Amino acid sequence: MPEMVESTPSTRSTGSRTVLLLLRVLTFVFLLIALILIATSKAIDADTGDRINFNDFYAYRYMISVIIIGFAYNLLQMAFSIFSVVSGNRVLSGNGGYLFDFFGDKIISYLMISGSAAGFGLTVELNRNLPSNSFTNKANASASLLLIGFLFTAIASTFTSFALPNKAIT
Amino acid sequence: MPEMVESTPSTRSTGSRTVLLLLRVLTFVFLLIALILIATSKAIDADTGDRINFNDFYAYRYMISVIIIGFAYNLLQMAFSIFSVVSGNRVLSGNGGYLFDFFGDKIISYLMISGSAAGFGLTVELNRNLPSNSFTNKANASASLLLIGFLFTAIASTFTSFALPNKAIT
Repeated sequence: MPEMVESTPSTRSTGSRTVLLLLRVLTFVFLLIALILIATSKAIDADTGDRINFNDFYAYRYMISVIIIGFAYNLLQMAFSIFSVVSGNRVLSGNGGYLFDFFGDKIISYLMISGSAAGFGLTVELNRNLPSNSFTNKANASASLLLIGFLFTAIASTFTSFALPNKAIT
Repeated sequence: MPEMVESTPSTRSTGSRTVLLLLRVLTFVFLLIALILIATSKAIDADTGDRINFNDFYAYRYMISVIIIGFAYNLLQMAFSIFSVVSGNRVLSGNGGYLFDFFGDKIISYLMISGSAAGFGLTVELNRNLPSNSFTNKANASASLLLIGFLFTAIASTFTSFALPNKAIT
């Protein structure tokens, strides 16, 4: 039955692996820009004269944590990809690699959309009470980039879901 | 090759279907309570005397939209389950049902965590500037219930990912 061989997990096509790597590189780049934007956004409080940065808002602190976690995850996945291209073997053998990809993409994509939503949820409210300023604009741009990064990771997660060996649970 | 038969999509076990239905019923109940809580949370503005409700905050409006979408999706899925138990057939035949479950659970779970995160992101900031009050407490409880509902849907999404016919993309 040669047509069944294609459905076994060990024969993931080169095409989908290339798309996956591309998605991870894109996510990595968008997260990097998002990180720079939110980390460098600063403002001066008009009433007190205090300096304000992302650290003064829980939602932005959560957002920056999520960006760093997503960044580290994508770095790890890219390292795994490079290793497997160089050595010809996957880092995690058997089903382990597929489960790691599946749960990794799933959990990281949930974290990324939650970080983006928390950032947007706060930013729209701050924007209603303040005139246009570089602090909320940068935070908004950062949340938008995180959302785009999330979309790439969600697409990657769809790929790694279809690549799952479907005998494990059902 | 009788062991290959178990991996085909048409033989999803009764056990995992029961777990899925249970997860959807639990999500439904949690979303219902979350909806009641956020819809009934009210406050009086201490400065102006205006009535405040969820409608005055974009993050809460987004949260209530997400709760209603999740609610409708789970209602539909429960109706499909009941139909398939009564008639003995799935509503969507072939791979369509599995793809609908997979993408439905995936998209709805992303929506749910984003709604919950947006709600929390705003609530923690409101709570820092206000004394403890029933408005933000109810909003907090609603976001927490939405988060629990998300967890059930994320588990359901894992099940429907493993049930995917994995020949479609890889």
